[in-house]
Amino acid sequence: MIKVGILGVGTVGTSVARILIENSDIIEARAGKKIVPILGAVKNIDKKRDIDIALTDNPYDIINNDDIDIVVELMGGVEEPYILVKKALQNGKAVVTANKALLAYHRYELQEIAKDTPLLYEASVAGGIPIIGALRNGLSANHIESIKGIMNGTCNYMLTKMIKEGVRYDDVLKEAQELGYAEADPTFDVGGFDAAHKLLILGSIAYGIDAKPEDIVIDGIENITQTDVEFAQEFGYEIKLLGIAKKVDSGVEMRVHATLIPASSMIAKVDGVMNAVSVVGDSVGETMFYGPGAGGDATASAVIADIVDIVRGNSGPMLGYKKGLESGLKLLPKDEISSQYYLKIKVKDKPGVLASVASTMGEYGISIESMLQKPSRYKDRVRLLFTTHLCKEKKMLKAIKALRGLESVDDNITMIRIEK
Amino acid sequence: MIKVGILGVGTVGTSVARILIENSDIIEARAGKKIVPILGAVKNIDKKRDIDIALTDNPYDIINNDDIDIVVELMGGVEEPYILVKKALQNGKAVVTANKALLAYHRYELQEIAKDTPLLYEASVAGGIPIIGALRNGLSANHIESIKGIMNGTCNYMLTKMIKEGVRYDDVLKEAQELGYAEADPTFDVGGFDAAHKLLILGSIAYGIDAKPEDIVIDGIENITQTDVEFAQEFGYEIKLLGIAKKVDSGVEMRVHATLIPASSMIAKVDGVMNAVSVVGDSVGETMFYGPGAGGDATASAVIADIVDIVRGNSGPMLGYKKGLESGLKLLPKDEISSQYYLKIKVKDKPGVLASVASTMGEYGISIESMLQKPSRYKDRVRLLFTTHLCKEKKMLKAIKALRGLESVDDNITMIRIEK
Repeated sequence: MIKVGILGVGTVGTSVARILIENSDIIEARAGKKIVPILGAVKNIDKKRDIDIALTDNPYDIINNDDIDIVVELMGGVEEPYILVKKALQNGKAVVTANKALLAYHRYELQEIAKDTPLLYEASVAGGIPIIGALRNGLSANHIESIKGIMNGTCNYMLTKMIKEGVRYDDVLKEAQELGYAEADPTFDVGGFDAAHKLLILGSIAYGIDAKPEDIVIDGIENITQTDVEFAQEFGYEIKLLGIAKKVDSGVEMRVHATLIPASSMIAKVDGVMNAVSVVGDSVGETMFYGPGAGGDATASAVIADIVDIVRGNSGPMLGYKKGLESGLKLLPKDEISSQYYLKIKVKDKPGVLASVASTMGEYGISIESMLQKPSRYKDRVRLLFTTHLCKEKKMLKAIKALRGLESVDDNITMIRIEK
Repeated sequence: MIKVGILGVGTVGTSVARILIENSDIIEARAGKKIVPILGAVKNIDKKRDIDIALTDNPYDIINNDDIDIVVELMGGVEEPYILVKKALQNGKAVVTANKALLAYHRYELQEIAKDTPLLYEASVAGGIPIIGALRNGLSANHIESIKGIMNGTCNYMLTKMIKEGVRYDDVLKEAQELGYAEADPTFDVGGFDAAHKLLILGSIAYGIDAKPEDIVIDGIENITQTDVEFAQEFGYEIKLLGIAKKVDSGVEMRVHATLIPASSMIAKVDGVMNAVSVVGDSVGETMFYGPGAGGDATASAVIADIVDIVRGNSGPMLGYKKGLESGLKLLPKDEISSQYYLKIKVKDKPGVLASVASTMGEYGISIESMLQKPSRYKDRVRLLFTTHLCKEKKMLKAIKALRGLESVDDNITMIRIEK
């Protein structure tokens, strides 16, 4: 019998304990041993919970418990779980965590501490979708060319509503908050930070990149308007918040941002709170993994898959490599990434303005792929919409600065990256 | 160093050898050891091949070779590879196979022989998509509620052409044959047999069902016409060849057939030669796994993932269970499955015919969900299109027989199952 202790018995922790009990038949058949949750650690021991499991308010009752084989960390936060997970590993306990923030900051230290003790984290990225397993195992023959993921259900829910029903950003945010999909302060989701944590984890498995959130481009969806959604569709695109990691000649690009993607691509068809991760490998070609990115039971499904893996003795190397890669790939600096861009520029409706905008873009080496002129809601203004060919982000940022300096151009230029 | 022998050096075998060599950096980093293909067995040793590997025309040079750790079986066929794989396992060699026909007939005998020697087969279902890994590992916490897969790229290519471009069945078959997607005798693909082999493998992992192809419903796409495709769209459906395995109260249904699925469902959006498998688990909800279902490199990607798993020491139980399930699930007989149905019936255009068709259906307990009357190409004929509520296949088959007996009804009634 394998005994499990759970740090944090909230929504996911409750699901983990309940599913271990309710599905014990199939879990035992698959793992080869009975797996039993015996103790949970919580902040408030008096709070009523939907699960019958012994509780403590001292996490060390689990960490230092000789009876417990596997510690499941579902507390959230960064530094407190880091200390506890470290101690659990040092005590020789296998650890399963769903904590993406912990891993975004401390995955390499934890790998160092864990050594041969299993530390698994399938639930930390895209909830119930076994994407970590796919990258670590199923696609292990491949050099990964790119990973593009819809990894934040809140943003995808909001963008889907804007795309399919024409709901305005502010209204859909309010609705998402009422439904519990978005927090009162939604910044962590809509600002792209949650997706960035997940992307950093995938970037380690695919490329061995040791980066922190502050090292990569993180833009959210806060500035996407209904107008952008409609214009994108005119150009044949949908707007999605993507986490992108890809290998280019000079290194690895990693970035999270609202992205125009071809409406015909498989990932553009992922609607609502669902998540999906597209992975292109040099042998396999394009694969995509789709499913629920959040929710107690879906996340617990991934947590328990890790527990079963540990019980079977199948942990594998934490970040996917038994040996370090000799050919260390390097993360490109934020402004060294290359992209195509969509630009929405509001200008005075008078002769010569388009020419001055176009010539400014030319000066900075920005090559225009397509252009549309649209009326503005404001009198004497028109909107210029551009899509560009591939260029360095550095050039684009300079060009935008220069465009803002033009006499007839409004300050708030919208720039959205395009990914094909 | 791990030494690999390959039985069958055709398209996939060549890719396996080439990728093991070309991607040896990443494969060694992930597996922890160097993996080298040292010998291939072929029928015709004089044929020129695109790969530099020692060859033999005697498979036992591999099977009985003390130097070889892992045998990769890519010969095709059933009985010859069965004898060879058995012998390799008895010699203590780990085996990786991509041979779905072999497994459709002999997976349980092989599991019995293999015992603790790894026998892996990721490439046997849906080519490069790591769906076996997902079922065996990533979703191990779940009772599987259903599996619905597009697992034959030839059929999906043909149906996509019919749906998107209005190409007629005969023309698209000819085109698929010219492109090499379909064989000169296309029965194995368009008759649903290839998909059935794959479904049987998934059915074992999900439900422990020991069935052979002859035990399950297998209908192909040969009778699907452009008219059906268009009518399906009027009802809000697309037509796909699906392999379906699902748990119902009385047991497990397994079947392969052309299927009407809601146009809005994720799997309906899978176009061309791509494969996708949707898996619903009781904890995780719906997940979907998408990617190339065939092709040398994509299939080799899955073969090598298995090799890496073996080298890491992570083989797990062959059919997903460390222990047998106590609660053995039973396969439902073919005519005990339940479905909704689409019926296309050509009738004489005269008073009373619709009434007699409807009342015959009523007599057999078939409840109509929706009905459309359409003109026929033939004078004095009209087409009646029905979708029905859920009913037992047995009843439907009897009703169709009775309908054929009606004086004003043409013999060739089209029946397509609906899956929501």
